[in-house]
Amino acid sequence: MKTEKISEAVVRRLPIYLRYLNSLAMKNVMTVSSQELGQKLDLNPAQIRKDLAYFGEFGKKGIGYDVGYLIEKIRQILKLDRHIPVALVGAGNLGRALCNYNIYLREEMKIVAVFDASPGKWGETMGNLTVQPMSELAETIRRLGVRIGIITVPAMEAQNVANSFVAAGIEAVLNFAPVIIKVPNEVRVHHADFTAELQSLAYYLD
Amino acid sequence: MKTEKISEAVVRRLPIYLRYLNSLAMKNVMTVSSQELGQKLDLNPAQIRKDLAYFGEFGKKGIGYDVGYLIEKIRQILKLDRHIPVALVGAGNLGRALCNYNIYLREEMKIVAVFDASPGKWGETMGNLTVQPMSELAETIRRLGVRIGIITVPAMEAQNVANSFVAAGIEAVLNFAPVIIKVPNEVRVHHADFTAELQSLAYYLD
Repeated sequence: MKTEKISEAVVRRLPIYLRYLNSLAMKNVMTVSSQELGQKLDLNPAQIRKDLAYFGEFGKKGIGYDVGYLIEKIRQILKLDRHIPVALVGAGNLGRALCNYNIYLREEMKIVAVFDASPGKWGETMGNLTVQPMSELAETIRRLGVRIGIITVPAMEAQNVANSFVAAGIEAVLNFAPVIIKVPNEVRVHHADFTAELQSLAYYLD
Repeated sequence: MKTEKISEAVVRRLPIYLRYLNSLAMKNVMTVSSQELGQKLDLNPAQIRKDLAYFGEFGKKGIGYDVGYLIEKIRQILKLDRHIPVALVGAGNLGRALCNYNIYLREEMKIVAVFDASPGKWGETMGNLTVQPMSELAETIRRLGVRIGIITVPAMEAQNVANSFVAAGIEAVLNFAPVIIKVPNEVRVHHADFTAELQSLAYYLD
């Protein structure tokens, strides 16, 4: 299993497989074919078989994939079998939406701390968390072992927040601000860009 | 220019190029090299040249790309030179965040109507819009020529909203609800999934 060779496109599809497999497991469905996965997820079954083959031979011809085993394997590959605490900076509408969403996340990967630069936000409740001042960020991140940081501040403040995250030892950043942020090479950044999503959808209009 | 052959990965990178090119244009920068684009966007310059070559030969060796021309071309390819009105259903925190974000969007592709099923939300102001009841969705979408629908309702309600969008003639859907929705083949769906973003980031942690 050469994880370093897995393309970003495959890594981005695995959580989608996982979500559907979890819904099958909740319904006590034991096996699933690549055809069924393809139909439900709007993907080509051959693509799905290829994706899953990266990680070894899990499927059986004519029977399909063992749902529980596949869930376990994908969770291992995505490292979701480990505890990965997440912190968020920016207690606006989007930050609040994400914190409220926290209840849907598994225990292993939850937002565990929220920060904002504005004193007016400090002490506010977001989901099950209380907004803290930025001055507490470094210490809190170290104490809670936070590994991923989420940025939901306005574009102008995003780079500063990224710098604070990096200084505190964060390893990966999910940036919702509509701006490109720069971080050292060893830190991974994903941009969650609403405008880009809309624009790439527009491409598919006739 | 065979647009039907452009991969989804390329279509998803074009808005990222466009955003950076727009920032250069605002600073009156006239040309840019693939090296500089690559450095700013954390992409391989060869990948960038390959992406842009899909659409014809825009770059000049030793000089680079004409920023204005590239912006115009990418906007054409993404069909952003047309008017594409957007509607949103779900006036919660996330819906509000997206509507507030509306001011960053160009005139050609803005959210022009917001709906919610809950009477308590009707008449509320979100950004520059007023929340309307679902009963007005079909008529409003037709009147305003809305082509893309955004779903920011809880998972349980998302399929119903998708059905309403499809019935009203929407051509593409951006779904933020943490659930897979089914639509007819001729309708394009993108899932904006916060959990999946976090999970694919986790893959890159050591």
